[in-house]
Amino acid sequence: MPNKRVVIIGAVALGPKVACRLKRLLPDAEVILIDQEEYISYGGCGIPYFISGDISDVRELMSTSFHMIRNTEFFEKTKGVHARNRTRALSINRTAKTIRVRDLLTGKEEDISYDQLVLATGSLPNRLCVPGEDLPGVMHVTDLKSAIAVKEYISTGRVEKAVIIGAKAVGCEMAEALSDLWGIDTTILGNRDQILPGILDRQMARMVQMHMKEKGVDVHLNEAVKEITKGDGEHALRVITSRQNLDADLVITSVGVRPNSELARDAGLLVSPRGAIVVNRRLQTSDPDIYAGGDCIEVMHLVTGKSMFLPQGSLANRQGRVIGTNLAGGFSTFNGVVGSFSVKVFDLGVASTGISAQTALNEGFDAVQTLVVQADRAHFYPTQDLMYLQLVVDRKTRRLLGAQGIAHNGDALVGRINAIAAMLPYRPTLDDLSNMEVAYSPPFASALDIVNATANTAENILDGYNKPVDVEEFEKCFLSEEPNDTICLDVRGPANAAPFVARFGEKWVNIPQETLNQRMSEVPKDKRLFVICNSGVRSYEALRQLEHAGICEALNVQGGVAALKKSGILKLNGEAQEEEGSE
Amino acid sequence: MPNKRVVIIGAVALGPKVACRLKRLLPDAEVILIDQEEYISYGGCGIPYFISGDISDVRELMSTSFHMIRNTEFFEKTKGVHARNRTRALSINRTAKTIRVRDLLTGKEEDISYDQLVLATGSLPNRLCVPGEDLPGVMHVTDLKSAIAVKEYISTGRVEKAVIIGAKAVGCEMAEALSDLWGIDTTILGNRDQILPGILDRQMARMVQMHMKEKGVDVHLNEAVKEITKGDGEHALRVITSRQNLDADLVITSVGVRPNSELARDAGLLVSPRGAIVVNRRLQTSDPDIYAGGDCIEVMHLVTGKSMFLPQGSLANRQGRVIGTNLAGGFSTFNGVVGSFSVKVFDLGVASTGISAQTALNEGFDAVQTLVVQADRAHFYPTQDLMYLQLVVDRKTRRLLGAQGIAHNGDALVGRINAIAAMLPYRPTLDDLSNMEVAYSPPFASALDIVNATANTAENILDGYNKPVDVEEFEKCFLSEEPNDTICLDVRGPANAAPFVARFGEKWVNIPQETLNQRMSEVPKDKRLFVICNSGVRSYEALRQLEHAGICEALNVQGGVAALKKSGILKLNGEAQEEEGSE
Repeated sequence: MPNKRVVIIGAVALGPKVACRLKRLLPDAEVILIDQEEYISYGGCGIPYFISGDISDVRELMSTSFHMIRNTEFFEKTKGVHARNRTRALSINRTAKTIRVRDLLTGKEEDISYDQLVLATGSLPNRLCVPGEDLPGVMHVTDLKSAIAVKEYISTGRVEKAVIIGAKAVGCEMAEALSDLWGIDTTILGNRDQILPGILDRQMARMVQMHMKEKGVDVHLNEAVKEITKGDGEHALRVITSRQNLDADLVITSVGVRPNSELARDAGLLVSPRGAIVVNRRLQTSDPDIYAGGDCIEVMHLVTGKSMFLPQGSLANRQGRVIGTNLAGGFSTFNGVVGSFSVKVFDLGVASTGISAQTALNEGFDAVQTLVVQADRAHFYPTQDLMYLQLVVDRKTRRLLGAQGIAHNGDALVGRINAIAAMLPYRPTLDDLSNMEVAYSPPFASALDIVNATANTAENILDGYNKPVDVEEFEKCFLSEEPNDTICLDVRGPANAAPFVARFGEKWVNIPQETLNQRMSEVPKDKRLFVICNSGVRSYEALRQLEHAGICEALNVQGGVAALKKSGILKLNGEAQEEEGSE
Repeated sequence: MPNKRVVIIGAVALGPKVACRLKRLLPDAEVILIDQEEYISYGGCGIPYFISGDISDVRELMSTSFHMIRNTEFFEKTKGVHARNRTRALSINRTAKTIRVRDLLTGKEEDISYDQLVLATGSLPNRLCVPGEDLPGVMHVTDLKSAIAVKEYISTGRVEKAVIIGAKAVGCEMAEALSDLWGIDTTILGNRDQILPGILDRQMARMVQMHMKEKGVDVHLNEAVKEITKGDGEHALRVITSRQNLDADLVITSVGVRPNSELARDAGLLVSPRGAIVVNRRLQTSDPDIYAGGDCIEVMHLVTGKSMFLPQGSLANRQGRVIGTNLAGGFSTFNGVVGSFSVKVFDLGVASTGISAQTALNEGFDAVQTLVVQADRAHFYPTQDLMYLQLVVDRKTRRLLGAQGIAHNGDALVGRINAIAAMLPYRPTLDDLSNMEVAYSPPFASALDIVNATANTAENILDGYNKPVDVEEFEKCFLSEEPNDTICLDVRGPANAAPFVARFGEKWVNIPQETLNQRMSEVPKDKRLFVICNSGVRSYEALRQLEHAGICEALNVQGGVAALKKSGILKLNGEAQEEEGSE
């Protein structure tokens, strides 16, 4: 039997992984890897760090961990894979089992036959579809070539002001890249009511936004771009939004990507309504000799049970291995995703898994969200810091649907999110999370770790022991300009409470939790009561005491003063030095 | 109905948790918490950090996260719990439903009646059972009182040399506490052939031991203590072992703990052969009105399916909540453990979950271990560092049995171990781990994260594609003094290989992997071949190339030169500056 030939279209993440895995298992296979671009097999997710300067040389994104450049020669010599860059796949002839390609340097076209074909065509950046988006200085960072162009442009020193259009992960990473090292005055424009929509719920997103603001990045939400024009001379460009004009020397558009599936559709392969190639669990397309993976396909979300588009380099790598195994005659499946996500935004780690409360509501779950603020290690361990963790739970089934969090110690946060993610395919309930076994020692966890504590809190809420109100509700009901009869019962010590009492007067009543039973008569009984402490722990205890005393309508401010401050909802003058939420 | 009375014996970790949970759910219950010691409700796991000075004030271990001391008054006022310290429980009369207690200050005895009783009697330190173990200066750190005594003793400035007897977690933590801040010349004595026995396998334990050695701590293994005598005048004590005499000013004994179950046994409750109280999943003893939890019970290990003794403050906290819920009339169970563990040893995070390969073999599994060395984040991200992760897998079923690892970034390591632990109750296979969804962005993970890569490597081993040899086997076969015909084929670049070629001569052959196909004829064919690179990745690739060329008996050194160096097996002069295992 002659050696089979496998052709792979696309050589960034999935393509090279398929090629290498296949060659290791089936060294006699002839593997051809083609890509229309100059650069192949690079770490696209590293682009913001290349632009920021954290990664000084672009070759680091194209190197193996042992410092070899992954160019066509590397694939040929080290991997035995015929890699052809600057070669565009024009069409697929499924009957003849050939693809038509054009050498972009010579213009020469030819047909390449295949026994099996892999589509690793990735994604394309969404366009803004407004006038001026092709002006010089309006750029994107979707691939290495465009990233190099952005960095070269910045390096000229001409960029004082930048506008990033899009408040998704890459937009946030780019804001840090531009402002932190280059000192560029940076504004993010988002057309939704929060940053990181679909990933974080709004209260968590506000905390991240607040952090960006503290770092000097302006974030404008609910603001659509109408047009980009040339600037007035001082700055090269002007971004005209639904609310204002913003001058900029550089505009980065980062409004998401869409599957690049034109080749597949033209070849008659099944493509979903949103344009992603449809595959089975073995990652075969509707033509069993053609596989697809990475950013051009849809995957099953194991929480919602629905197909979704989730372009991530990590998925591409894992899917690449599955395809490689299957091409070599093995049996391997990719069963779906739980939608894990992480991003570093300046000093803050941000991570999530599963679905947000908003998504859960849209999907028909009776979603409840629970926020807990707790130290990332034993509270007595010297280097502890606060972590903010939110769970999303279905009320009736107590099924865990998702989790999201922020922390300055990003590794500690991402570790918790990964642990929750590892459970999600098994459809865990709160009980399972309440007993999740976190490896305990004081430098790495609390004896009752935040993941357990958050599950316990959610359970207490569902059992009716804890009656929560979130910080946005607090803002609406308590801070509202309109007259309202909400009273805050602050159960912290007098020193912590004093500035709040000073500001809010008789609307802010301070009775420390340890004295509450004795001072129950002082609790206002004719008002709506929000009970608050630094994090929500003592206020929960107080809630139980109040209920025992017959005051049953009080609500517990989730995340307490720590969450109010972190989200910027409550800032008191001269309060910056106060120890934040240390309970 | 009169309010029921619940008595809890023991007030360190589980007892207070039971009391507080119960009072929150059932405020009318009368809860009595008794303990024979002065100090109650403290973070016992923080003791090494108190002794080191990381925690300067012992009250920090006894405080809530909002800085209130958890003494008897705190429990009375804040929690509504009657806490009585310095009160010893002498016996239980299950028929009368009373316990006999003695006030240790007045000597007065009385009977306290209970409706339900909770045994939170914890554990007792094992004794050495050698002459001299009660000499002044021979101390332990099992509780806060003894820890305070140790710190006071050290603070006198008399301690220049210390011997720690016992190489378990607390012994390792104490070695750091004594030597790092106090500058005490510290030796650990272990009577087994490795440190952290039962937790790490030997190759991983050697790496931790090597790190301690680099930090100036001597570790003596396979060495039993015969006697402790008074010293010669210069030092207060002398430890006489099976091999030598060691002078010391302070001897810490830390040879594990055993369940404190005398009270239960005397009351006729079911106690296991190893002395732990037997409970059901609701944590009831053989008397349904008596619950027990924490260090005095046995728990089900979800990997082995057997009962085990696992004294950990985190379990005590979680079990306390279960008991509290059940006492309040709810339904809650504690279903078992997967045996997660973490410890910080100087700059190194060490963590594990499930069972070790040695335990797995003892339990009848056909256990295979796989070591992978990889960066803890994207290899191109500036602050990445190496992580060492080992999996334990059952060959036939491909079931994941355990994982263990070390890393300088302890949070990143513990996060991975927690994620694996979260899966373990669901009896995952390698396939599940290969597709575990790690939240990816370059600051927090690799596109193909180390947990996925390690699962893939294990799969390759079970599939016969990767044929591993571990570092101890390397030591035995290659470094042995006796004549052997093992050859190392080093597939790294010439610069990395040169010092090894210089040292080992023709036994160390360097053919970089990218040139291997061309230079196949130079590979020695009549010798046993160990293929090596920095971490095991390129050597795996080389193994596949060799096999394709008909050389099928070569073995891949797991973890490569990085693992050899980390474990101290291979140290070359003047090599300290070489970039370590960066692939």
